Amino acid sequence: MSAEQLPFLVGFVVMALASLAIYLHGDKRQEFRHHAQFHSVVPFIAATAYLAMWLGTGTIDGPDGAPVYLARYADWATTTPILLAGLILTGLHEHPRHSTYILPAIVLDVIMIATGLAAALSADETAKWVWFGWSCAAFAGVLFMLWGPVRAIGDRLGGRLEQVYRGNLVFLTAVWLVYPLVFALGPEGLGVIAIGLENWAVLVLDVTAKVVYGFVATARFKTVPA
Amino acid sequence: MSAEQLPFLVGFVVMALASLAIYLHGDKRQEFRHHAQFHSVVPFIAATAYLAMWLGTGTIDGPDGAPVYLARYADWATTTPILLAGLILTGLHEHPRHSTYILPAIVLDVIMIATGLAAALSADETAKWVWFGWSCAAFAGVLFMLWGPVRAIGDRLGGRLEQVYRGNLVFLTAVWLVYPLVFALGPEGLGVIAIGLENWAVLVLDVTAKVVYGFVATARFKTVPA
Amino acid sequence: MSAEQLPFLVGFVVMALASLAIYLHGDKRQEFRHHAQFHSVVPFIAATAYLAMWLGTGTIDGPDGAPVYLARYADWATTTPILLAGLILTGLHEHPRHSTYILPAIVLDVIMIATGLAAALSADETAKWVWFGWSCAAFAGVLFMLWGPVRAIGDRLGGRLEQVYRGNLVFLTAVWLVYPLVFALGPEGLGVIAIGLENWAVLVLDVTAKVVYGFVATARFKTVPA
Ligand SMILES: CC1=C(/C=C/C(C)=C/C=C/C(C)=C/C=O)C(C)(C)CCC1
Ligand SMILES: CC1=C(/C=C/C(C)=C/C=C/C(C)=C/C=O)C(C)(C)CCC1
Ligand SMILES: CC1=C(/C=C/C(C)=C/C=C/C(C)=C/C=O)C(C)(C)CCC1
Repeated sequence: MSAEQLPFLVGFVVMALASLAIYLHGDKRQEFRHHAQFHSVVPFIAATAYLAMWLGTGTIDGPDGAPVYLARYADWATTTPILLAGLILTGLHEHPRHSTYILPAIVLDVIMIATGLAAALSADETAKWVWFGWSCAAFAGVLFMLWGPVRAIGDRLGGRLEQVYRGNLVFLTAVWLVYPLVFALGPEGLGVIAIGLENWAVLVLDVTAKVVYGFVATARFKTVPA
Repeated sequence: MSAEQLPFLVGFVVMALASLAIYLHGDKRQEFRHHAQFHSVVPFIAATAYLAMWLGTGTIDGPDGAPVYLARYADWATTTPILLAGLILTGLHEHPRHSTYILPAIVLDVIMIATGLAAALSADETAKWVWFGWSCAAFAGVLFMLWGPVRAIGDRLGGRLEQVYRGNLVFLTAVWLVYPLVFALGPEGLGVIAIGLENWAVLVLDVTAKVVYGFVATARFKTVPA
Repeated sequence: MSAEQLPFLVGFVVMALASLAIYLHGDKRQEFRHHAQFHSVVPFIAATAYLAMWLGTGTIDGPDGAPVYLARYADWATTTPILLAGLILTGLHEHPRHSTYILPAIVLDVIMIATGLAAALSADETAKWVWFGWSCAAFAGVLFMLWGPVRAIGDRLGGRLEQVYRGNLVFLTAVWLVYPLVFALGPEGLGVIAIGLENWAVLVLDVTAKVVYGFVATARFKTVPA
């Protein structure tokens, strides 16, 4: 096992345990139960992706020789929509037209991840940064929806759920903003950070965005009266 | 930039602007809002695909040496389900069992696009036309659902929405039928049309099926009383 | 046509006819109609996959030289979620929070298929069996949900639908358990069964899990009073 691989083994173990822990710890009340299940399935997906990175499955050579982990993008492309859907459902609790906000946000989000992968695979420097920019534009669209229309509707609904939404929104935004930064500094971007360090940084981010966020978000629900 | 590439740059600019324009122009009333959002996200996906075709991302050599644009099929595989879902939701307005009609139609639709790609990639002539035929069969299934059961339910509901459905249905059918024709005549098929011409033809079709249709469809909604 | 190919032609014809037959035979009552449609679209997907395997589209060489059929995994990755969703909808009939159980079950199910493909493509023996084990773990998670929480809610609802659920659950579990067995014995696993025999075995399984199950499941619905 090379040194680069260690974070993947750690990631696999942490994510697998976290999946179980969140399932057991989550709010069992009918009305909120699906949130615990969403947050439990997210680290299960991540555990699978870390297993793949550890075994080398779906790891290919990027244009500069640094490895590109397809499993990481497959993870992000499935877990970020689930996290977004959970947050938007919170903001629009019981609102009749959820899909209005969930579908466009998820489309933008998946485009963000897919074009991020295109940036990582681009040999041409111009193409790489065009893709990076387009990915950031999609990300801006996602944040606009969460901070704009969804928050506005949540505010009108008011109550305890509004506070849960706001708390989760701030947490999610803060963590997600670090991802493009790490990407831009890592071997996929400017190459200021080496791959070994980047893999640890992404592990810390992933654990924060999935596991810590999962616990915090589901714990906040427990403060909501039935 | 080669001459073949020009329609891609044009496509990118038109689709990006159209996405914004449809979002701003769309009906903001709660009940119809999701239609404007669906129609805005469709050209955003297309803009991303045109950017990819312009940069050469996901462009591979087909069996006869003509390029095959994977981004085009990825665009169609995601935008056509959204357009279909929007149309079916119109036909079955407030009907409790939407998914009955949406899921099978989308499955057929995605099979149509995936087997169209298989046709484009087939070196063997027999395999190519078998795939083309199967793709047309799936397309026929989609049209059957739209003109058969969904229209029948819409008719029973009656009212202004029925007229919106019929108008959108005629428009969509007319435009979509041209796609297989262009494909059959282009380098993927008989090779009667050169790639340069085909790319312009597909651009015109895409702008009609996504942007013009998007404006017309959302404008029709504005005629529906709340 | 090589001998290995014959089951694919048979599969194509059987699945295409079964898709039509289930559509015509299914329960047309509003409330149950979507089940017949789900069960009709499943063999349509399979027919497309068998056509691909027959034509050689998406057939690649596995690590030991035995062919790996990507179309088979694409089929399973789309049909098993539809079958699961249909079963869970039956168990939770009219229950307000379907998505709670459907989303996590489908995520586990898709991971089961994707990691099964990873196992089939692994040249390294350890990696192969790690993937096989992880796929089985995901499968166990799916079965847990169906036999645990979903059945418990179905029991509480009681009535005729509970019996439909139980009958379908037993059938589905019995058939699905044979898939990993065949995989483990076939060229993807221990190599005890030759590819020719395996292809026939999978055909029998697919017809049972999709067509026979489709008829049985929709026939059971006809016994439910409206
Ligand atoms: C904007 C941008 C990116 C954003 C990535 C994000 C926001 C990832 C979030 C991942 C999460 C939250 C995973 C855990 O569940 C990329 C693709 C790095 C690169 C290009 C620019
Ligand atoms: C039947 C058939 C086709 C149909 C394509 C269609 C109907 C595409 C529609 C695209 C749209 C509407 C995009 C814009 O949003 C192919 C794949 C060309 C080739 C094989 C036969
Ligand atoms: C656990 C396991 C598997 C399970 C496969 C199953 C359960 C497939 C079911 C397919 C159906 C029901 C298709 C028809 O609709 C694999 C991927 C063979 C291999 C690895 C271990």
